[in-house]
Amino acid sequence: MEKTDDSSWRTLQTVERATEIIRLLSELDGAGVSTVAERLDISVSSAHSHLATLHETGFLIKQEGDYHLSYRFLHLGEYVRNSSELYRCGRSEADKLADETGHYVHLFTEEKGRGINIYEARGEHAEEYDYQSLKLQRGEPLHISASGKTILATLPEEEVRARIEQHGLEQYTDNTITEETALFEELDRIREQGYAVNDEEEIMGYCAVAAPIQTGSEAAIGSISVAGPTRFFDSGADIEQIAERVMTAANMTQVNINMSTRAD
Amino acid sequence: MEKTDDSSWRTLQTVERATEIIRLLSELDGAGVSTVAERLDISVSSAHSHLATLHETGFLIKQEGDYHLSYRFLHLGEYVRNSSELYRCGRSEADKLADETGHYVHLFTEEKGRGINIYEARGEHAEEYDYQSLKLQRGEPLHISASGKTILATLPEEEVRARIEQHGLEQYTDNTITEETALFEELDRIREQGYAVNDEEEIMGYCAVAAPIQTGSEAAIGSISVAGPTRFFDSGADIEQIAERVMTAANMTQVNINMSTRAD
Amino acid sequence: MEKTDDSSWRTLQTVERATEIIRLLSELDGAGVSTVAERLDISVSSAHSHLATLHETGFLIKQEGDYHLSYRFLHLGEYVRNSSELYRCGRSEADKLADETGHYVHLFTEEKGRGINIYEARGEHAEEYDYQSLKLQRGEPLHISASGKTILATLPEEEVRARIEQHGLEQYTDNTITEETALFEELDRIREQGYAVNDEEEIMGYCAVAAPIQTGSEAAIGSISVAGPTRFFDSGADIEQIAERVMTAANMTQVNINMSTRAD
Amino acid sequence: MEKTDDSSWRTLQTVERATEIIRLLSELDGAGVSTVAERLDISVSSAHSHLATLHETGFLIKQEGDYHLSYRFLHLGEYVRNSSELYRCGRSEADKLADETGHYVHLFTEEKGRGINIYEARGEHAEEYDYQSLKLQRGEPLHISASGKTILATLPEEEVRARIEQHGLEQYTDNTITEETALFEELDRIREQGYAVNDEEEIMGYCAVAAPIQTGSEAAIGSISVAGPTRFFDSGADIEQIAERVMTAANMTQVNINMSTRAD
Repeated sequence: MEKTDDSSWRTLQTVERATEIIRLLSELDGAGVSTVAERLDISVSSAHSHLATLHETGFLIKQEGDYHLSYRFLHLGEYVRNSSELYRCGRSEADKLADETGHYVHLFTEEKGRGINIYEARGEHAEEYDYQSLKLQRGEPLHISASGKTILATLPEEEVRARIEQHGLEQYTDNTITEETALFEELDRIREQGYAVNDEEEIMGYCAVAAPIQTGSEAAIGSISVAGPTRFFDSGADIEQIAERVMTAANMTQVNINMSTRAD
Repeated sequence: MEKTDDSSWRTLQTVERATEIIRLLSELDGAGVSTVAERLDISVSSAHSHLATLHETGFLIKQEGDYHLSYRFLHLGEYVRNSSELYRCGRSEADKLADETGHYVHLFTEEKGRGINIYEARGEHAEEYDYQSLKLQRGEPLHISASGKTILATLPEEEVRARIEQHGLEQYTDNTITEETALFEELDRIREQGYAVNDEEEIMGYCAVAAPIQTGSEAAIGSISVAGPTRFFDSGADIEQIAERVMTAANMTQVNINMSTRAD
Repeated sequence: MEKTDDSSWRTLQTVERATEIIRLLSELDGAGVSTVAERLDISVSSAHSHLATLHETGFLIKQEGDYHLSYRFLHLGEYVRNSSELYRCGRSEADKLADETGHYVHLFTEEKGRGINIYEARGEHAEEYDYQSLKLQRGEPLHISASGKTILATLPEEEVRARIEQHGLEQYTDNTITEETALFEELDRIREQGYAVNDEEEIMGYCAVAAPIQTGSEAAIGSISVAGPTRFFDSGADIEQIAERVMTAANMTQVNINMSTRAD
Repeated sequence: MEKTDDSSWRTLQTVERATEIIRLLSELDGAGVSTVAERLDISVSSAHSHLATLHETGFLIKQEGDYHLSYRFLHLGEYVRNSSELYRCGRSEADKLADETGHYVHLFTEEKGRGINIYEARGEHAEEYDYQSLKLQRGEPLHISASGKTILATLPEEEVRARIEQHGLEQYTDNTITEETALFEELDRIREQGYAVNDEEEIMGYCAVAAPIQTGSEAAIGSISVAGPTRFFDSGADIEQIAERVMTAANMTQVNINMSTRAD
């Protein structure tokens, strides 16, 4: 951010603090004025000004003296989700895939180098895990999931390197790919077979298969995946059968998007 | 909000503008610096400072020169949803109810006098309507829906009057209750029978049945509803059968919430 | 048409002739210059000017010396069909109804006092009749069909009288309602039961059941009907069962339209 | 068109304007007198004369002050469709093919160098795309579809060249054939194997197989095609199986046409 005169610096600082407060209230599941002042190392009066304004404009609610994020964020979040062609054109395919396989299905895309799960459909065998509910609440590295790897596989090599440099290759399980060479070999394999497998690379005992959604020949705009306990992904035959369904859903979504773009 | 010294007034104004920018970008589906400056009647340099800071802090993305809300809002929205006990304890009941009835099911609560649909489950006969997707993106009046009326029915009379005064009784269809007396009679009926019916009061041809979710004897913390085309709500027998299921789901959710509160 | 100066009179006459030529070419299944001149009682040179211009602008094709209407009319016809909310919101309901019943299903509306079948779906028992293909090629009186009567039943009495005065009550079969009093009694019955029956009133041996599609409480914007051989409409039980399905399809279409209008 | 005397020049101009008005009203989804005058750069009085005459003769309707194309165009469009032997003799084959394959099936012909889809049948796996509904509302280039290429393959080389010269070889996707040499090689291949494949040449992710309908040995009068997502056209075996069915349907249609011509 280049501007540096006094007034724009104040703006920058004030807006930054407002966003820090939002982040803080979500971390602490709500907080009062003094906690906010203390945690952000600002005066109580400044904390009060920020909180009162965010409250007044509808972004916070007040409950028993503490401020919490309001449902305004749910509305904006649903708006952002609905703005995505991937969601609008892929949702019913994801629902169908969850019905067919009985597992979790995710629509996934990349934003600022992080993987974002924009929609989750649950099949009848998909157990409720607290960890799953967090998947919709935060970004994740691209190299630990079938969804992420399948997107990386459609990027030029230098773009993959840039992402590795920026975010590293953090280890999640013994199976996580943490070496650049191994990752590039994996991406070759994914390009060849048309789908990616997550072989307990994020969570032991949990697998996934993903296929890229590409509108043309350029980088994928997202991916669709099926995830479930290892038992269902045990044999090569299982995986291939799931991969066939996932690739079909990716193809249907691709056509939905291309048709809808053409019709405009 | 009591304005005090100069600096807190500046804070207030800056934060307010940041929130206006967020609202504007959602209304316009993205915009550039000059459009934002023009629409909010501020200088280009001030618009730039705000936008750049919101971009830097991850709340906006930039695409082809325009700023858009980022998936950060989806994450915060999902966080807010998950913070709700009504959602955590009612979601699987809502899913079951949608499976059983084949219709749309909503978990609903009130925030700042407006009705909020916090979760939607779709049964197999639930058609995809654009209007439905908007239900998750904005608040709505309480008097036009079974969900809203069932919450009003658990409030003290003066609280109902306060809401009418603040928000009015806007007419949506010929069947919308727009008279205060008629509304209070309706709330009596709802309290008596334990559930509320929406008889084409929001959309002609579309009905709903809702039951309140009360953790104790005080005001409902939310409601659960089933909605579908009039044909399925035609006879008193149809409605009573649906109402039975809805009240059961409300009861299950109530117990889930009370058990989970005890466990803490 | 009030304008009467010389130039507007020439315009009127020239455009009128162009439309007469289009009508004539559809009646004769194509014609040459001299036939057109003779039938419209105009000079060969004038006929040639009209035909050549309509050909040049793509509305006619020339085959073996004769002019015919081009597929431009098919494109414009499909455009007009797609401009109709009744079609866009009712087509999939009509398809479902044809699948369920196995019969012919029509979406029907009124234009300039004539009934228009805007879409036809065929179930698996629907035989191909030449007469059916003509149903999409021309308007028909409102009093001879279940579709037409169901629309009349939603109109104020004076509007019904105006249509009778303009178009009469032509007799098609022994069962056609040709008396005004009988028609008004029939409309009462239709309003009461919510659907109309065509009891061999257009074609002996052929019946139909229709329900109105009303967005609110005003006149119907159209109707949906099921038609088939008398055998399938034999008992009151048969008719009531079909009527239930037809009314459900009408209700679904109504909701589709109301939701789509709301979402705009 | 040789302009001759003054009166035929006036005719030409007046009829041309009438056709421009029809085109304009379909582009703008209806318009009022002043908009028409402005867009066609003619006087309001002239616009009024044209519109009033087209309205009087039944080609336009008036709604809230704006003129729109009437259902007369639907009637004429259905008449033109029914005038086509390809439609009358191919429709039930197209319906069967859609039932068997579950995909979209089109009957296709050429008019004035453009491809025209005269009929569309939908199988149970055929998703509703807005783009598809446009296929019946406008012509398209011949080189981008299996249907179009299969017709080109039955034409003498100089006729193909004439069409290329007139319409060019516009690029739709990376796979579109845009080089004349490549197109002629493709036409050789099509003649050899008896059917044409569209390998994502119009829309990425979407394929089709078409066979020509020839009444004798001369140029095809049309074609019949099956289209769907790439996944269903993945292997040579898939394509050959679909091609077999398509060629059978083309053969059946050919016999229907030849039999019906004999019967006259």
